Amino acid sequence: MKKSAVILHSGGQDSTTCLAWALTKFKNIELISFDYGQRHKAEIRAAQTIAKKLNLKHTTLKLPILKELTKNALTNQSVKVKAGKKGQLPNTFVDGRNAMFLTTAAIYAKQKGITNIVTGVCQTDYSGYPDCREPFIKSIQKTLQLAMEYPFKIHTPLMNLTKAQTVELMDKLGKLDLLKYTHTCYEGISPACGKCPACKLRLKGFKEYGIDDLIYYR
Amino acid sequence: MKKSAVILHSGGQDSTTCLAWALTKFKNIELISFDYGQRHKAEIRAAQTIAKKLNLKHTTLKLPILKELTKNALTNQSVKVKAGKKGQLPNTFVDGRNAMFLTTAAIYAKQKGITNIVTGVCQTDYSGYPDCREPFIKSIQKTLQLAMEYPFKIHTPLMNLTKAQTVELMDKLGKLDLLKYTHTCYEGISPACGKCPACKLRLKGFKEYGIDDLIYYR
Repeated sequence: MKKSAVILHSGGQDSTTCLAWALTKFKNIELISFDYGQRHKAEIRAAQTIAKKLNLKHTTLKLPILKELTKNALTNQSVKVKAGKKGQLPNTFVDGRNAMFLTTAAIYAKQKGITNIVTGVCQTDYSGYPDCREPFIKSIQKTLQLAMEYPFKIHTPLMNLTKAQTVELMDKLGKLDLLKYTHTCYEGISPACGKCPACKLRLKGFKEYGIDDLIYYR
Repeated sequence: MKKSAVILHSGGQDSTTCLAWALTKFKNIELISFDYGQRHKAEIRAAQTIAKKLNLKHTTLKLPILKELTKNALTNQSVKVKAGKKGQLPNTFVDGRNAMFLTTAAIYAKQKGITNIVTGVCQTDYSGYPDCREPFIKSIQKTLQLAMEYPFKIHTPLMNLTKAQTVELMDKLGKLDLLKYTHTCYEGISPACGKCPACKLRLKGFKEYGIDDLIYYR
């Protein structure tokens, strides 16, 4: 069993599934969340709740620069959340978000002597986001290794899973119960809207796997 | 002539030389500086002065996360600036600094439709900093292209120049005069200390090229 890992934990379904996966792989786990001015800050509270339930260290790191620089539906309340048309980036795409998150996570991890970083990116259903794809992850892993002369290893247990398979993984890990504390809705509301692209994708996964979601919808 | 470029302009000798180089290559130039809690904030004031002299747009972007996460002589006044011993990173190395700077610069550039980014990193004299070397720059260029599906091009005109050749480049560009507004000293003082690794390297370059530096030393 590898020793320690930092998990990028947004408080959503995917990163919480990564957390459940990591509990079986690593001895010491630290969770980090990012406050980047996102409209769905509820996810940070969800992350805190889950960390508390599992008695894990949780740190929220502030990256206001993302909101300052970018215009998109996630950091700008006046832009309505919409799915992307074919060949277009969805308007919830935050330029450079995962590059910024992973770089910050790597700096954090290195200060603690940790080489393992876990993130819930997935190229199967979220392929509209270029910074969720495998070529990006491989490239930034090498970039961060070169930047700090440090053997970072980025783990992406969900990379090639469908949303239904992600629910299945959580079921197999015996941690489905944790999902009731997660927050996914882009609108940042609870009960969740059930209509935004994030809610729809989540609901689709549960439906395909054949169980009910554990959170409430409007 | 390519149209536009964003220049990472610290206000130091190297980035000001890059700026002089860029003036011959690009039509529209925007300068950005980073406030990351460095002890030598004087360099930001230097950058502002130079931008004003040349009538260029200058923006200071805040990245306090670097100071929050890292312990080193540049972001921590209580750590004395020291050169690195052989095989060791100097204690002025800020983990992930250039990865963070270039990612932020790329996000900024993309919002303005700019693909060209210019940075004064140099692997010749600063080889103690892994994030100043060519393999890192090539890797992060690819990472950022993948992250945002955008054809970023990172220009590093000083990559293989010695400090003396950097002074020579400025001389050939007819812009030596600009160097009198630059700030290099890690101690953040003016007149410069003349003793820190940054001052020593600067002085060595001028000496080898055979002219006097244009700033004052104690």
